[in-house]
Amino acid sequence: MSAEKFMRLAWKEAEKAMEIGEVPVGCVVVRDGEVVSAAHNLREHHRQTDAHAEMLAIKAACERLDSWQLGGCDLYVTMEPCPMCAGAIIQSRIRNVYFGCYDKKAGAFGSVTDLATCNWTHKPGVYGGIMEDACSVLPKQFFAKLRSGEM
Amino acid sequence: MSAEKFMRLAWKEAEKAMEIGEVPVGCVVVRDGEVVSAAHNLREHHRQTDAHAEMLAIKAACERLDSWQLGGCDLYVTMEPCPMCAGAIIQSRIRNVYFGCYDKKAGAFGSVTDLATCNWTHKPGVYGGIMEDACSVLPKQFFAKLRSGEM
Repeated sequence: MSAEKFMRLAWKEAEKAMEIGEVPVGCVVVRDGEVVSAAHNLREHHRQTDAHAEMLAIKAACERLDSWQLGGCDLYVTMEPCPMCAGAIIQSRIRNVYFGCYDKKAGAFGSVTDLATCNWTHKPGVYGGIMEDACSVLPKQFFAKLRSGEM
Repeated sequence: MSAEKFMRLAWKEAEKAMEIGEVPVGCVVVRDGEVVSAAHNLREHHRQTDAHAEMLAIKAACERLDSWQLGGCDLYVTMEPCPMCAGAIIQSRIRNVYFGCYDKKAGAFGSVTDLATCNWTHKPGVYGGIMEDACSVLPKQFFAKLRSGEM
């Protein structure tokens, strides 16, 4: 299944974040079946609010496609986007969003609020729960380590 | 009045955007009564989804304060933030947001939706309509020029 193929790549990005002590979230942007950009969360390393996986992937895709509009692109991310990232997805005109596990505390595509249902000029298609179990493993491990003082 | 003092600086930033053909929105981030960063919309020039005034001001503030958390900072922006920028304000832990005119089509602090009322870990104080008439002049001029083919 195509969504799982790209979610696996997003998962590999999340693993890279995990390895360097960042909240493990990974993302890829895809157009016409090809990966345009891939990124993982780097908020602590960059010390920047907007260094979430989705923002970095969108930034790299804009640079590669030389446009702030990413119509025709789909985005795969291992965790439900926060309001900033969900907003950037809406602003960039990304066509479809596929996310893995839900984020009950900060998710803006169904959990805390659902920005996809608001009356914006552009509304992406949103598909949650793709490879949900696999995508929730890394965050669970991460936060367990954080609580135990290992990180 | 303090809010108007800083909104005037944001307005001057919006004017810079207007001068170069960008949607005229300007922003300043303030801490302890001092300007930490100032920016204006550069989306077309940067060809980046996230080159909104608020995102650029938050990025510059993070760099200056060497942290992705901007607790204790207030943000002044001439127009109601879109969902991406409102989300970044929430994520960055900015204390209070003061905005000028409302954005009926894309505003995420009261117009299309209100992200300040959702159950996030951090909720900023939001004050809309500061110098509303003055702040709405530049966007009105901009879109009138756009429609008339002058831009």
